[in-house]
Amino acid sequence: MSDLPKHVHIQEEGPREGFQIEPGPISTADKIRLIESLAETGINHLQVCSFVSPKIVPGWADAEATVAGFTAKPGVQYTSLFFNESGLKRALAFKDKLTVRGSISLTASAGFTKKNLNRTHEENLAAMRKQTAALLAHDVPLTRVGVMAAFGCNYQGDISAAEVVSTIEDGLAIASEAGVEITEFSLADTMGWAIPPRIERTVAEVRGRWPAMRITLHLHDTRGMAVANAHAAIKMGIDRFDSTVGGLGGCPFAGQKGAAGNICTEELVLLCEEMGIETGIDLDKLIEVGRMAEDIVGHQLPSELIHAGSLDAFRRKAA
Amino acid sequence: MSDLPKHVHIQEEGPREGFQIEPGPISTADKIRLIESLAETGINHLQVCSFVSPKIVPGWADAEATVAGFTAKPGVQYTSLFFNESGLKRALAFKDKLTVRGSISLTASAGFTKKNLNRTHEENLAAMRKQTAALLAHDVPLTRVGVMAAFGCNYQGDISAAEVVSTIEDGLAIASEAGVEITEFSLADTMGWAIPPRIERTVAEVRGRWPAMRITLHLHDTRGMAVANAHAAIKMGIDRFDSTVGGLGGCPFAGQKGAAGNICTEELVLLCEEMGIETGIDLDKLIEVGRMAEDIVGHQLPSELIHAGSLDAFRRKAA
Repeated sequence: MSDLPKHVHIQEEGPREGFQIEPGPISTADKIRLIESLAETGINHLQVCSFVSPKIVPGWADAEATVAGFTAKPGVQYTSLFFNESGLKRALAFKDKLTVRGSISLTASAGFTKKNLNRTHEENLAAMRKQTAALLAHDVPLTRVGVMAAFGCNYQGDISAAEVVSTIEDGLAIASEAGVEITEFSLADTMGWAIPPRIERTVAEVRGRWPAMRITLHLHDTRGMAVANAHAAIKMGIDRFDSTVGGLGGCPFAGQKGAAGNICTEELVLLCEEMGIETGIDLDKLIEVGRMAEDIVGHQLPSELIHAGSLDAFRRKAA
Repeated sequence: MSDLPKHVHIQEEGPREGFQIEPGPISTADKIRLIESLAETGINHLQVCSFVSPKIVPGWADAEATVAGFTAKPGVQYTSLFFNESGLKRALAFKDKLTVRGSISLTASAGFTKKNLNRTHEENLAAMRKQTAALLAHDVPLTRVGVMAAFGCNYQGDISAAEVVSTIEDGLAIASEAGVEITEFSLADTMGWAIPPRIERTVAEVRGRWPAMRITLHLHDTRGMAVANAHAAIKMGIDRFDSTVGGLGGCPFAGQKGAAGNICTEELVLLCEEMGIETGIDLDKLIEVGRMAEDIVGHQLPSELIHAGSLDAFRRKAA
């Protein structure tokens, strides 16, 4: 247990992940309300929107209005997602409010790259070279290589640790050509293929190869394994996770209607806090925000904890 | 990883746990359909109903009709739940079809004993002595001590491993007085207080004290931790779990309306199979039954997997 981190850093992506997939229109005011409430829980890293084509992701047609509308809380980093130079420029228009950082984002599955981005792996590498150049031209920090579908893929099946390593190598080659130093990898279980031993194998392999690199896990709870996977990772010392309040989200291109979204932030916080690991987040406040999120989307969210309440709430009642 | 079991034995309790808590009336025909379908998945241990007062649990007013109605599949053990001699007699009326076995069932939390059974711990011990005598008088095998709220309690807060050990000692004393040999403990996380380190501590403590005893875990997913807890237990060699298809169930007396039920059978099966541990259960068939269960209760069940589909189904498509 000596590998346990003292602190786990949580990157909340509920607004961005959630509102891109919700079928009903969500008002800009509700998006702003959720973002501002999340910032009051102690979360200090908050991905607020996606700058993507409204034709492809109609849920984020109001990305500009949302970013313009919320009041930023000091000490909280607000980020956005973008996939190309057009998205980058939209984000940079808010560079006083948003932390704009780039990523070389690849996929370990050629099948998913085709489905998600309509590109071959080679085309995606070319697109990432182009995006890297664009980021540098705009003086945007680029320190991260991201690998989607790092644990398996609905369109391609199992993904080995060797395939993840090879995908990272492709990303590092792009960075190296551009003279950029990468300090962080993000491994995403985009379609919920991971189980704890697969997390352990892939993390061990990547770490063995690049021991100094910081690793973030982006876990989806598609098959109910996310908390078990996070636990396995935490035991290996992984201390950065993306997550979404209430378990908002899911991948609109993964071919699984009704599938669950990301690992729930509040369940991840409960796990950490009960293991004696700090997150800096007030769980009871976060549960209230999860309930608000459920109210905003108008249907039951996957989080069990927002329905049950925290252990501390019951401890206080019992005392 | 050397402690990993080769086979995990799953005791399906979906019908009993699920239909006792569902608000809407479920037809006897639907209960029978679910029981018969579950038996076709490879599950060989199936708890089909509760013989309890219909005033307290109206969902099981048709326990007799349900048991009389289903066609038993050879090789499948069908069990029922009962809490007193009246329930026992109702079960024994079906002894050709049901495997009737007794249990000395205690609770590690006095607060929960009061809420759930309206008894003090001492009154519950007396009731269990009386029930033990009744079981013996009816020649019913009694080999198990069960401990509810073994990892925490909504009415009492945290429960230590020492409290679990002491509760088991009380149960063993009753067995010993009656001249009964206990071979099995069941530890229930009735209200979803467990996290993996708590599972590890309590199981280690109980095992250290009684190394030869077989341990079954009855996990609830109240706060989303059930799969992580099962994983921690499996890594310690625990090879018997109660679970419910679709995650049916929940405890009607735990004071948590809308809280999740038991660990989902299909998520437990996925975890085992992907770890290379046999369960004897056909996951794709089970997922179909989970969808049927959702259809029967008429609302979304907590299982993520029934919405996403198995990995093998996607592997076959991708191949």
